[in-house]
Amino acid sequence: MKIALAQLNYHIGNFDSNTAKIIDAINKAKQNGADLVVFAELAVCGYPARDFLEFKEFIGLCEEAAGKIAEACTDIACIIGLPTVNSKPEGKDLNNSAYFISEGKVQARVDKALLPNYDVFDEYRYFEPSTEFKCIDFKGHRIALTICEDLWNDIENPLYITRPMDTLIEQQPDVMINIAASPFAYNHDEERIDILRDNAERYKLPLFYVNQVGAQTELIFDGGSLVFDSKGELLDEMPYFEENISYYTLNDDSTVTFEHEKRIKPNRASDIEQIYQGLILGIRDYFYKSGFTRATLGLSGGIDSAVVCALAAEALGPENVLAVLLPSKFSTDHSLKDAMDLVEALGCKHETVAIKDITDAVETALHPQFKGLPFNIAEENIQSRSRAVVLMAICNKFGYILLNTSNKSEAAVGYGTLYGDMCGGISVIGDVYKTQVFELARYINREREIIPENTIVKPPSAELRPDQKDTDSLPEYDILDRILAEYLENRCSSSEIIQMGYEEATVRKVIKLVNIAEHKRYQTPPILRVSPKAFGMGRRMPIVGKYLS
Amino acid sequence: MKIALAQLNYHIGNFDSNTAKIIDAINKAKQNGADLVVFAELAVCGYPARDFLEFKEFIGLCEEAAGKIAEACTDIACIIGLPTVNSKPEGKDLNNSAYFISEGKVQARVDKALLPNYDVFDEYRYFEPSTEFKCIDFKGHRIALTICEDLWNDIENPLYITRPMDTLIEQQPDVMINIAASPFAYNHDEERIDILRDNAERYKLPLFYVNQVGAQTELIFDGGSLVFDSKGELLDEMPYFEENISYYTLNDDSTVTFEHEKRIKPNRASDIEQIYQGLILGIRDYFYKSGFTRATLGLSGGIDSAVVCALAAEALGPENVLAVLLPSKFSTDHSLKDAMDLVEALGCKHETVAIKDITDAVETALHPQFKGLPFNIAEENIQSRSRAVVLMAICNKFGYILLNTSNKSEAAVGYGTLYGDMCGGISVIGDVYKTQVFELARYINREREIIPENTIVKPPSAELRPDQKDTDSLPEYDILDRILAEYLENRCSSSEIIQMGYEEATVRKVIKLVNIAEHKRYQTPPILRVSPKAFGMGRRMPIVGKYLS
Repeated sequence: MKIALAQLNYHIGNFDSNTAKIIDAINKAKQNGADLVVFAELAVCGYPARDFLEFKEFIGLCEEAAGKIAEACTDIACIIGLPTVNSKPEGKDLNNSAYFISEGKVQARVDKALLPNYDVFDEYRYFEPSTEFKCIDFKGHRIALTICEDLWNDIENPLYITRPMDTLIEQQPDVMINIAASPFAYNHDEERIDILRDNAERYKLPLFYVNQVGAQTELIFDGGSLVFDSKGELLDEMPYFEENISYYTLNDDSTVTFEHEKRIKPNRASDIEQIYQGLILGIRDYFYKSGFTRATLGLSGGIDSAVVCALAAEALGPENVLAVLLPSKFSTDHSLKDAMDLVEALGCKHETVAIKDITDAVETALHPQFKGLPFNIAEENIQSRSRAVVLMAICNKFGYILLNTSNKSEAAVGYGTLYGDMCGGISVIGDVYKTQVFELARYINREREIIPENTIVKPPSAELRPDQKDTDSLPEYDILDRILAEYLENRCSSSEIIQMGYEEATVRKVIKLVNIAEHKRYQTPPILRVSPKAFGMGRRMPIVGKYLS
Repeated sequence: MKIALAQLNYHIGNFDSNTAKIIDAINKAKQNGADLVVFAELAVCGYPARDFLEFKEFIGLCEEAAGKIAEACTDIACIIGLPTVNSKPEGKDLNNSAYFISEGKVQARVDKALLPNYDVFDEYRYFEPSTEFKCIDFKGHRIALTICEDLWNDIENPLYITRPMDTLIEQQPDVMINIAASPFAYNHDEERIDILRDNAERYKLPLFYVNQVGAQTELIFDGGSLVFDSKGELLDEMPYFEENISYYTLNDDSTVTFEHEKRIKPNRASDIEQIYQGLILGIRDYFYKSGFTRATLGLSGGIDSAVVCALAAEALGPENVLAVLLPSKFSTDHSLKDAMDLVEALGCKHETVAIKDITDAVETALHPQFKGLPFNIAEENIQSRSRAVVLMAICNKFGYILLNTSNKSEAAVGYGTLYGDMCGGISVIGDVYKTQVFELARYINREREIIPENTIVKPPSAELRPDQKDTDSLPEYDILDRILAEYLENRCSSSEIIQMGYEEATVRKVIKLVNIAEHKRYQTPPILRVSPKAFGMGRRMPIVGKYLS
């Protein structure tokens, strides 16, 4: 049996485009002599469709698309993922399902049993878990078909009571197929390989795994579909961050062979290379799927906006990126020069709009209220917000989307101005710690100096008051980022972090800063997720709660 | 057996305050001769604690608080709600539990079985559902103790496979107690009474129901705890929107008697009266629990900001409300007069900051880029964003929280400026349709004219261009709001709404406006929830999805 794995980039709710893409892949697979072509979890509607799933019309459109796809399945079978109406009289309205289609008809339906409901996942919000498991017979093979999380129940620390494969294995299948929508995080590819290998070893069956690729707002799907033999050996790894269709033969003795070159890298891509590729895909798909082509951003001469500008130029083309220099009276000459050097290296467009007259006008208007009071955070924020007014006016006038340039470290400690530099349609590096931003800059410069060396080596500063430096009010970034990772990713408390050896006063200050910034993060743009724990839908904190100290 | 129902206002994560409040109620109940005092679901930590629950330290603090509460339980028993560590080796880390405490010790633990995971609820994110049900024996009575949703499984259309009371009833209890954290919506009180009555009737047992009261950011808990007899008759209804402890005697024949006057209103409070009370509590608790006392807002002379100003003055005291008049060149004289009339009627503070020089400075700075292009949405938004810069500067300088004044109708259709009038720490009327805002204004004026009549009767206008009216670009609000309710609350598609008899072009335009504003709503402040379907945590839509048309 020749099996095609179709790793495609879907668009949530875009049934025309998703259906056309699926049918096109079916036709290609047919031409290539495949007997079966396998698509990802919820391929028909895209993942995560979120509360679209609560519209009956949406579910009807999924079924309609499945009908069109079935019509294309003559002389070939396919497996597609889609939401279906729960067939039982009790429980949630829907199942997260796979259709096995052949001879132009849906021959079997498999429902997902293990529904992730942690971090970015909300599957219990919509779906009823399956409790019945049945293999599918096709061309002399017996397929144990499961959906994503169904294979992710850790033996050591089980998150769910059931394990669908424990029931399916009793029916003596000779192959496992798993369709997935498994979002990217820089450390997720190896974990995924380990868990799937563990399944192949445990059940002594070859395993075909198909993931989605492409970004849906904040969630980036990285592809990297996998094939294992019945001993758990990884036979092939499909490309990351791009669409691909690959072909494999499942032989009668359950061995798997294929004609293309095996694509397992001897060394895995570094975290930073993966983050870079993920962000490029994230930016590109955000614009493409929103129907926009052009981005703008404020370019300060600092490293954050420089990295975002370089990423945007790569993702959208430099001709579609407008860098706006917005000097204030505190901007240094070297900052403007660094910004212009970057613009030249990238070849993107630029404009300069000085904000001094705007901030002066605001301060004059507020003089009756503010007179006699010292310059403080209010005046700093006036600068940042005046820049936002200018950038958003440019967006409104010319149809750009503003890119937010805040990094994860400053988003964490609230080092940013709400409605000022925290503006934007999408946050590009809001899940990238400052220390990783430096690594990204070095990676971007791997072949030639794009980001000026001076931008990389100078001490970070918001330049909102004279001679300001980030370290005036924050610890050094290498310390800060490690404390943040313990708190945000590992859910350690202050006292636990102090016990690790960090200075008590620093830890308490950092954690307090994170906690009092919840109300600011609530109003920030969606953040491209590249780590296992990003701000946004994956981290849901109370706003008026009294925080752990 | 004398039972005290303690309907209290908790603060998420504030263990000192919650524990002190619970122990104080225990002592009061003891003085009043109660044998048992019952607190709400997750009373120990507040509801919803969200991802706080993922911190081991947080769960430890809950257990520690329970220990202190147990020590106070001499000569009295109590039931408290708290998260506990899942006792089984499989599944989620926690249970949503109730402790039955007497003689200074935890005597029994009951875990919640039915975990709501729809709308604003995310309980499967944290909790493993219980599958074992056991009554509690105390003072010759056998108590069937359940937690909130455990009694909410509709016979006709069951959302869950299990029904805990079906198992508990076999153990022959003589009373039901249900502890809850059931958030307010203007139509929720009657639904709650119906569902609980249905349980009392079905199981032929008296039922004591204790709800939380108080707001936690967007969620408002309205109290209204209830007592039914074994025939399903509502015996008593505790007050709404305020703390209360009430006492009841459960007699040996399972009848319930009490000494205070029965508090069931012959006519239920109107939707608008409930919304008014809910919003007052929502504002008050947002400020109190955030540690702030003073609010500011932009007062335009229009009805939205007038209603918000009046609500804030009632909630916080007029001396704690600063109304800022921010006239532009398009503001009309009558608007300024209406605003000043309101300020005088309320007795709140006010400032006037003209924005003309600020918007002129922005337009001048952008002249090189904008020259020759017509006035459009960009210039309109510059006005709105300039106001935000001024308001936020005042907040930063003096320690105010800015109140957002957008209503639900305009939030729905995106009739607002991101980083402009969409700013604020909390949205007061973002879940109140424009037609309801008018009703609120009339309600506020029920005793004397607070909101100027002219503000109520003049045609709504954003005053961002000459002679602008909302109806230039939107349908009349009574039509708009009905279409919005069908789409947002009832999940009807355009075609279904058109079939109801609304004009096709209007429906398509409205739904399109709602859909293309998702990215704006993503960045808005938390919205006080008063309806069954509010924007925010209860409605989760993709941003780059292709929307139903």
